[in-house]
Amino acid sequence: MKTRAAVAFEAKKPLEIVELDLEGPQEGEVLVEIMATGICHTDAYTLDGLDSEGKFPSVLGHEGAGIVREVGPGVTSVAVDDHVIPAYIPECRQCKSCLSRKTNLCTSIRDTQGQGLMPNGTSRFSYKGETIYHYMGCSTFSNFVVIPEIAAAKIDPSAPFESACYCGCGVTTGVGAVINTADVEAGATVIVFGLGGIGLNVIQGARMVGASQIVGVDINSDREEWGRKFGMTDFVNPKDVSGDIVAHLVALTDGGADYTFDCTGNTDVMRQALESCHRGWGESVIIGVAEAGKEIATRPFQLVTGRVWKGTAFGGARGRTDIPKIVDWYMNGKIEIDPMITHKLSLEEINKGFDLMHAGESIRSVVVY
Amino acid sequence: MKTRAAVAFEAKKPLEIVELDLEGPQEGEVLVEIMATGICHTDAYTLDGLDSEGKFPSVLGHEGAGIVREVGPGVTSVAVDDHVIPAYIPECRQCKSCLSRKTNLCTSIRDTQGQGLMPNGTSRFSYKGETIYHYMGCSTFSNFVVIPEIAAAKIDPSAPFESACYCGCGVTTGVGAVINTADVEAGATVIVFGLGGIGLNVIQGARMVGASQIVGVDINSDREEWGRKFGMTDFVNPKDVSGDIVAHLVALTDGGADYTFDCTGNTDVMRQALESCHRGWGESVIIGVAEAGKEIATRPFQLVTGRVWKGTAFGGARGRTDIPKIVDWYMNGKIEIDPMITHKLSLEEINKGFDLMHAGESIRSVVVY
Repeated sequence: MKTRAAVAFEAKKPLEIVELDLEGPQEGEVLVEIMATGICHTDAYTLDGLDSEGKFPSVLGHEGAGIVREVGPGVTSVAVDDHVIPAYIPECRQCKSCLSRKTNLCTSIRDTQGQGLMPNGTSRFSYKGETIYHYMGCSTFSNFVVIPEIAAAKIDPSAPFESACYCGCGVTTGVGAVINTADVEAGATVIVFGLGGIGLNVIQGARMVGASQIVGVDINSDREEWGRKFGMTDFVNPKDVSGDIVAHLVALTDGGADYTFDCTGNTDVMRQALESCHRGWGESVIIGVAEAGKEIATRPFQLVTGRVWKGTAFGGARGRTDIPKIVDWYMNGKIEIDPMITHKLSLEEINKGFDLMHAGESIRSVVVY
Repeated sequence: MKTRAAVAFEAKKPLEIVELDLEGPQEGEVLVEIMATGICHTDAYTLDGLDSEGKFPSVLGHEGAGIVREVGPGVTSVAVDDHVIPAYIPECRQCKSCLSRKTNLCTSIRDTQGQGLMPNGTSRFSYKGETIYHYMGCSTFSNFVVIPEIAAAKIDPSAPFESACYCGCGVTTGVGAVINTADVEAGATVIVFGLGGIGLNVIQGARMVGASQIVGVDINSDREEWGRKFGMTDFVNPKDVSGDIVAHLVALTDGGADYTFDCTGNTDVMRQALESCHRGWGESVIIGVAEAGKEIATRPFQLVTGRVWKGTAFGGARGRTDIPKIVDWYMNGKIEIDPMITHKLSLEEINKGFDLMHAGESIRSVVVY
């Protein structure tokens, strides 16, 4: 079949909208019509050539929602007409990781997914006879995609695609970091570094579980209003602080925060986030993706005196088990999504979405097919 | 009164055995006759001038056991003739830390203790009219000491002082790191870096809780026999490994360890310990004290893919609550101490104890008064 898609033919070039050839689903695979997809910083990270493992030409996009149109042989957990979100971390429920009860990092198809291929080692996309690679097992910048059954998270069919798609990455990552990775408790003190799409979802996750003080930190003061919308209680612009930002935050939180979250990807900020934790028990969670080659550092004394340094991928959420829960929480009002969708674009306007993100003018742009 | 003590008059000089003047216990204080004390690397760290906050002249020693001989006004939790271990992290049960349920790092007397003084800001020790400072709130290299009541852990009076004293630091730190900080579960895979007095206690702690694989790593192959005595299942000398030690350990533990412990104080080893953890859930605990100014570093990807970096002070043990439990476990055979006490010395021989430690010829030397 044919599918309209925005293709990244090479790094650092705008996406091109073309008609691709798409093979149908094979054993254990599912054909999904993508109805909406968000544009995430990780797509830009790859498109900008910063991801050393990025493959081209490929179809980017990993934050979509759509409808199952066809299932391959052996597929039992989803059926035609089911509404699904493709999970870039699948959930096979069979591998050492899935069975560990301790991580969401299913390893069953990691190797082939990392190479831009389906689990059997081939691609379903081609253009004029040339292979086009998949991306993060999702490729939601194509109107139709083939994904593994174990990556198809079945969601409430009444959820609007334009909002639900955000649960495919940003919402689940931010809220999940709070509830799965940090396990923030009611009454806790939280500091969030970086008030972009992830940071705002960390804030609303912290509000949902009853955190008492939620401090937002951003060098863009325009983000204060955004933070307050979702539950932020204090805002700090490091540019307005004379002296050490860590000392300022420790004072503001009466000795340091119970939990801090880095949503910037900046390794210097990651250190500040750790050191802003309370002595004895503060935990810092790295969510942001750092530039290749950059390292985090601190004095071991910071850890010996009780601080804990962690990270999270996809908010510790399991693809098929947890994405549907997050969508349900949106549907019953526990969390908000609609106000974060600042721009809706057609596929033809997708490069504008990247421009808005780079300019810091969007929280989330969504492409609606 | 007078007390015989080994005094550190200045850094990098041998201790001198002299008679000190000791004032009796004031409000909330206790006079203890120390019966035995271990010699720990931390004493050497201070004596060697590596601790930027070390004060001289002082009475070092923080791993003792003894008998209460007098109590000051207001003391209610211990009485004359009680057997006690001085806890260098006290337990006031009133401060934010004690009440947090999350840390053992009681802060009630931290400031004065760090200055070598009793909580009221004065020292009980003097020599020829000059102030001699306390050390870590313990100063167990003195036959008699005055300590705060909140630092007096009352223990089973049938426990022999020469072994029980080791619970004042090394045993509790190693076993506690396993049970309090890491919370190792039965069946877990553990790697211990550095098989000195702390590392061996980590090993026996891991054995006690039912760890399945306990790998010891040391550049001194003589330590293999020691490790196996306490439950080590595999030994690795990095000098005998061609290629990357982390890759070697990850392969040996089928993907990485569930828990790793640094007992070396070497920041490069701390990084190896983190990176030897299993992707998705492995936790690394820093126990060793690093040189001043040294930093730990890694790629944030290590944390984002699920590894956790922690540290521990005194094994996360609360002074008055947990030390007596560790002594009980020794008395009923859950843990061993006696084989680790490799040398018993008189106070006059204390400098020999430091020499043995520096030469790697002792596991623990104990001074018996």
